Amino acid sequence: MGEATEKARAAKRASAQVGLASTEARNAALESMAQALRDHAADIVAANQQDMEAARARGTKESLLDRLMLDEKRVNAMADALVDLVNLPDPLGQVQVERELYNGLQLKRVSVPLGVVAVVYEARPNVTADAAGIALKAGNAVVLRGGSLAERSNKAIADILHEAAVSAGLPAGCIQCIESTDRSQTDELMSLHGVVDVLVPRGGAGLINHCVEHSKVPVIETGTGNCHVYVHESADLAMARDIVLNAKCRRYGVCNAAETLLVDASVADAFLPGVLADLAEKGVKLHCDDQAYRCAFAVEGADLEHATEEDWATEYLAPEIAVKCVGGVEEAISHVNEYGTHHSEAIVASDAAAQDLFAAQVDAAAVYVNASTAFTDGGQFGLGAEIGISTQKLHVRGPFALEALTSYKYVVRGEGQVRA
Amino acid sequence: MGEATEKARAAKRASAQVGLASTEARNAALESMAQALRDHAADIVAANQQDMEAARARGTKESLLDRLMLDEKRVNAMADALVDLVNLPDPLGQVQVERELYNGLQLKRVSVPLGVVAVVYEARPNVTADAAGIALKAGNAVVLRGGSLAERSNKAIADILHEAAVSAGLPAGCIQCIESTDRSQTDELMSLHGVVDVLVPRGGAGLINHCVEHSKVPVIETGTGNCHVYVHESADLAMARDIVLNAKCRRYGVCNAAETLLVDASVADAFLPGVLADLAEKGVKLHCDDQAYRCAFAVEGADLEHATEEDWATEYLAPEIAVKCVGGVEEAISHVNEYGTHHSEAIVASDAAAQDLFAAQVDAAAVYVNASTAFTDGGQFGLGAEIGISTQKLHVRGPFALEALTSYKYVVRGEGQVRA
Repeated sequence: MGEATEKARAAKRASAQVGLASTEARNAALESMAQALRDHAADIVAANQQDMEAARARGTKESLLDRLMLDEKRVNAMADALVDLVNLPDPLGQVQVERELYNGLQLKRVSVPLGVVAVVYEARPNVTADAAGIALKAGNAVVLRGGSLAERSNKAIADILHEAAVSAGLPAGCIQCIESTDRSQTDELMSLHGVVDVLVPRGGAGLINHCVEHSKVPVIETGTGNCHVYVHESADLAMARDIVLNAKCRRYGVCNAAETLLVDASVADAFLPGVLADLAEKGVKLHCDDQAYRCAFAVEGADLEHATEEDWATEYLAPEIAVKCVGGVEEAISHVNEYGTHHSEAIVASDAAAQDLFAAQVDAAAVYVNASTAFTDGGQFGLGAEIGISTQKLHVRGPFALEALTSYKYVVRGEGQVRA
Repeated sequence: MGEATEKARAAKRASAQVGLASTEARNAALESMAQALRDHAADIVAANQQDMEAARARGTKESLLDRLMLDEKRVNAMADALVDLVNLPDPLGQVQVERELYNGLQLKRVSVPLGVVAVVYEARPNVTADAAGIALKAGNAVVLRGGSLAERSNKAIADILHEAAVSAGLPAGCIQCIESTDRSQTDELMSLHGVVDVLVPRGGAGLINHCVEHSKVPVIETGTGNCHVYVHESADLAMARDIVLNAKCRRYGVCNAAETLLVDASVADAFLPGVLADLAEKGVKLHCDDQAYRCAFAVEGADLEHATEEDWATEYLAPEIAVKCVGGVEEAISHVNEYGTHHSEAIVASDAAAQDLFAAQVDAAAVYVNASTAFTDGGQFGLGAEIGISTQKLHVRGPFALEALTSYKYVVRGEGQVRA
């Protein structure tokens, strides 16, 4: 029995009591965890500095180092996020259905915790506090499996949080952090069907695919977004330009960023030169089909390439975009449904029929009409603390929050009823 | 590429159109499928007779032969079930959430089909019609993988249903039946992540465990039920006797049948001799702990054994029951949570504190207070056509119906909003 099994079983033992803790008790634990992070910020930053040094010595690239880095400000932001959870409504004990059956039985469907939530993530140590907080708020015990780059930071944060949660009255074992950096422990965690109730991978496509491929524990797939903006011939072209630039350039590394621009061929000459010049000016590399290539050719300083089949399927997560001209809304829908990852898809159009067809036929968690794909986010949707963005259809789809870490049970009360 | 892949991909191609078919179109298809079953009842019965002969020649046991057998009455019952689906409300197009965001974006969350539903089942050919009907009603294409014993029956039914659905206007390919009886095709089906959206196994524990173990497609686990009736010392003992007999003896082979009786030791002498005599009279074998054994010893003609650790964990699905005396509600809860399968659990008690503790702390899809576990059933719960009973916590728990074969999408309408 490896560390993952040992810790998941300990979480399982703690989970029943976490689930029975009152709203007040769980909120008090979150307050106490937030305060403990502030009180021990220096220790956390010191542990993080060791991780940073080790990461630099391994030649880790800057963007990853930035995700890994914690200073006092970032630690305080983690604490603030825990306090924000306190103010959200309790997802437990909600009576979702209540009715009397034909035979007088009183049936209620009530929200309950999932039990043990496992979160597998990469180099962002703030996930340690986020995930622990969200899991506990929803009455679950949590098993955390962070990336090896952040091992010291994660352990420091998890130990502080656990001590604070327990001193506030939650059961020992409610927050478990797997310390071994051996990859076998991730696989062991994924094998614990019946102990772990759900596994949420937070990270890149490689991590998520590995979990989908190997997990016997139910997975909520998150994150990969090969998102499109489609500009219909009826579009307000100035609006379309703003939306494309926002969806592509607001942040390059996020899953709701646009990766392909589709444009009706009939408006390509009117639309593309301007928007491609804007993109080129921001340093975005252009992967164009033949017609778009001709429109882009005159753009000064453009980093320009002919698009290949592979480009249509690529989530760049970088200042690059694929551009394709299409023969109308139906071709756009087919392209999106063939190459997209069912995440966030936008149409810019004035024509109501085109809008409705796109909204109805595109198979994605979020479909936008005349708005940027960048809004796919739990906070923007008003859901509260986001855990991730689900690209599967089971259980939750799109941005998901606390409620996704709950299930329900039926409680049926009678006076001796038996079934005929 | 094997048959499973080929057929699942064909289902995928058909699924978009099924999902866009109007309520009327899907209902018309169900009517037409029902009529076609009636019109071709003789062909179906003939195909079934070939399956029955082959099964007899293989020495198949009577209980299985009974599940396999179709006569005209059973075919008509399948048709009736399809017509019943017509009358259920459409689970698609339901607006679950509708709100204006801070920036004027109009957000709606609307129910949509899952896409491709795969059902893996054993020797009951009626599942072929049930599963196809439920999947289509919810706007999904379906891939059916029945047991080899029923291969000719299943093919006959699926062909008739498919032709009727297509002639009523649904897309070709919307009902797929895997004909190869090679087990590799089940495994291939389970590997089709991204093509198949959910896999529902309907059958025994072996089938379900195999799916959980090997499927990369999300699974809804169904069915295994190691259910308990717990008789608290405050129970109305006459009521308790009725409930135990109903939960154990109504039908032996169903997942909501009781498999273990727990009794407070303080009332064992008053309660057990009577109920054990009733059980023995019905031919139920008794696996008793020491105290229960002493109570059962005087029961004339009892088939009596000392219970082993294994008995607590066994789903007999047969006229057998395990009996254990416990020291109170807390021990009962621990026992249920340790050995149960989170399906259906009952307490018989007059004491409100004991009732509430059991209802709150037992981790099961359905918890009964003073009623039989036999009520765990979609029809009894008023959910309409039941697909199965989920023993997992993700997506659906307990009896699940049409709604479980849907997901949702967010449709967000704006006027050019971009994110800051």
